[in-house]
Amino acid sequence: MTQLFSFEIQAQQERSRAAVFHTPHGDLLTPVFAPVGTQASVKAITPAQLSELGASLVLANTYHLYLRPGDELVAEMGGLHRFMHWDRPMLTDSGGYQVFSLAQTRKIDEDGVTFKSHIDGSLHRLTPEKSIAIQENLGADIIMAFDECALPYDRAYNERAMARTHAWLERCIQAKSRPDQALFGIVQGGVFPDLRQASAEYVAGLDLPGIAIGGLSVGETKDEMNAMLEVVDPRLPEDKPRYLMGVGSPEELVNGVLRGIDIFDCVLPTRLARHNAAMTRTGRLNLLNAVYTRDRLPIAESCTCYTCRNFSRAYLRHLILAREMLSATLLSIHNLHTLLSLMADLRAAIFAGTLAAFAVDFFAARQASAPEAELEPPSV
Amino acid sequence: MTQLFSFEIQAQQERSRAAVFHTPHGDLLTPVFAPVGTQASVKAITPAQLSELGASLVLANTYHLYLRPGDELVAEMGGLHRFMHWDRPMLTDSGGYQVFSLAQTRKIDEDGVTFKSHIDGSLHRLTPEKSIAIQENLGADIIMAFDECALPYDRAYNERAMARTHAWLERCIQAKSRPDQALFGIVQGGVFPDLRQASAEYVAGLDLPGIAIGGLSVGETKDEMNAMLEVVDPRLPEDKPRYLMGVGSPEELVNGVLRGIDIFDCVLPTRLARHNAAMTRTGRLNLLNAVYTRDRLPIAESCTCYTCRNFSRAYLRHLILAREMLSATLLSIHNLHTLLSLMADLRAAIFAGTLAAFAVDFFAARQASAPEAELEPPSV
Repeated sequence: MTQLFSFEIQAQQERSRAAVFHTPHGDLLTPVFAPVGTQASVKAITPAQLSELGASLVLANTYHLYLRPGDELVAEMGGLHRFMHWDRPMLTDSGGYQVFSLAQTRKIDEDGVTFKSHIDGSLHRLTPEKSIAIQENLGADIIMAFDECALPYDRAYNERAMARTHAWLERCIQAKSRPDQALFGIVQGGVFPDLRQASAEYVAGLDLPGIAIGGLSVGETKDEMNAMLEVVDPRLPEDKPRYLMGVGSPEELVNGVLRGIDIFDCVLPTRLARHNAAMTRTGRLNLLNAVYTRDRLPIAESCTCYTCRNFSRAYLRHLILAREMLSATLLSIHNLHTLLSLMADLRAAIFAGTLAAFAVDFFAARQASAPEAELEPPSV
Repeated sequence: MTQLFSFEIQAQQERSRAAVFHTPHGDLLTPVFAPVGTQASVKAITPAQLSELGASLVLANTYHLYLRPGDELVAEMGGLHRFMHWDRPMLTDSGGYQVFSLAQTRKIDEDGVTFKSHIDGSLHRLTPEKSIAIQENLGADIIMAFDECALPYDRAYNERAMARTHAWLERCIQAKSRPDQALFGIVQGGVFPDLRQASAEYVAGLDLPGIAIGGLSVGETKDEMNAMLEVVDPRLPEDKPRYLMGVGSPEELVNGVLRGIDIFDCVLPTRLARHNAAMTRTGRLNLLNAVYTRDRLPIAESCTCYTCRNFSRAYLRHLILAREMLSATLLSIHNLHTLLSLMADLRAAIFAGTLAAFAVDFFAARQASAPEAELEPPSV
């Protein structure tokens, strides 16, 4: 397993690293951003378009695929890679986060979680063992331990959730049987530095092939997120990839890389695309805005994505008003390109030893632009 | 203009022709099928995907684009080719058909039609002159005369509508000013052979760069459609392209080519795709059918399209049930490939002198397959 999933650091600057993570479906060049294919499809784009964008890692959701079409069906169809035609590395989450955020009437006990499907109200139960069994059926390269994601500010609850997450992690390690999958443990602890420290040290002690940081980007401030990363990062082994779950705005990606994060995922670029918002490094454009009615410019003049090379803001606005699906496709392509090219530039800056200057310029450009009010992404 | 739009027959077999129609945006190799980009977008696919499919001609709707975003805006943005990023030949209809099928409270007089927008109820008026002005703003290579499309069985109404269509055609010819657009006249006459004959002779006498046959595929039987083509075709000039409007099933394409048609368009492949139906040469598959739940096969084993090369019926069914937009994209790609490759094969058969055998095999295969009941395409 160590050979299948070895992590080689190629360049380092302060806490930031450029590395290669070897997986059975090829190498991940980190830092890397993973588009989310919730239901075995990155919404509104094809795997060919995703490849063209230079995506290397795709995330899919255990909760969704367990409920529909069912992990056993996916296994029967040859696994997730084959089912959705993505032959590069994949990652599945544990289902925990969705059970806590989407499912109805959940009941948590020490053994697991009972919940009702958000699709049809049917009753289901997830345990650490069941989550691993599902993820083994799905067959992603990177799988996640079943954890309890608490809201950030309740200390007593975060203590209990963290303890449960640690106990469940040990059961996941026991349950895991496929040598071609790397199991990552998850650091929890809300916004409490001592809990985060304890969790980081606990998970770091288990010698897993990678470590994730969960329970962030769930309502806390950006400063709180950064503070937690400062606590956690020094306590994680240097020679293992670090995955910051569910994070994805350009600003958070830069902040994360500066604090030693190697892997990110987020629905933000594709979700914003379906809500008419184009992401740039300095802000967002709401393309429904009447100011773009006759605007011949692309979303971003310096952008080299398929959308910006070929289509005007006026055309994108027309597609949105005319309710043409193509708007979601073209905006998803642009938004993913924004994040993927940012990651490539961050990686190059680490190699060149220019990351600090890059980050200073990045934040200065954000400050200098008169950005439209950032749109809050809708919650589902 | 004759030079810009010359039509060269390369091979001929009985009434069928393989030809090149030269346009300012490149050559059309006929017989050709045009995907429909109603609102300046072929629904659910990008121009790059359309090019990859080998599409050469795209149709857009004057009625829709006049109402939204407005033909003047499109002109200001550099015309339709540039606006939607399609740099091959384009065709716009006259708006007549949609006024009669979509708009509300229309009032027809000898001068034109007054109607209410289906979008917001606002009042508008189309005349032959206005239709041409809009189409000149849009800037397609092939534009259509403003006509009145009557339902097929009312003889008295078809007589009046045909007379009006002829009078309006002459006004369109007068109104037209752009030398880089080819104006096609439209033959009407319902299901009445003498009316069709009169209309064909009238339009043929005007020496236009191409001639369209309208008012078919609007409720009449396939035999009636074929009978009308038999009446019209011999009366049209050999050296001009013939365009059968709104036709589109594999069977109708073969029947049309056998009767001398060079150009077709239809929303059927993309509309069926959005309603879960895959078209093959021999029938249709409703991919929502539970029989495909665990089906590892592609839609059609012999098909070489992107969808069939990479995705199973089980995956497509999953996308449909999960309401993922990707199902519309993948099925549109497949359905368009089915029609575009059929046209390419028909063209090759004309060159090879094997069209009769091809057609016999085509209809025998349809007969032999135990097709699912053909799905009626939804009306909008």
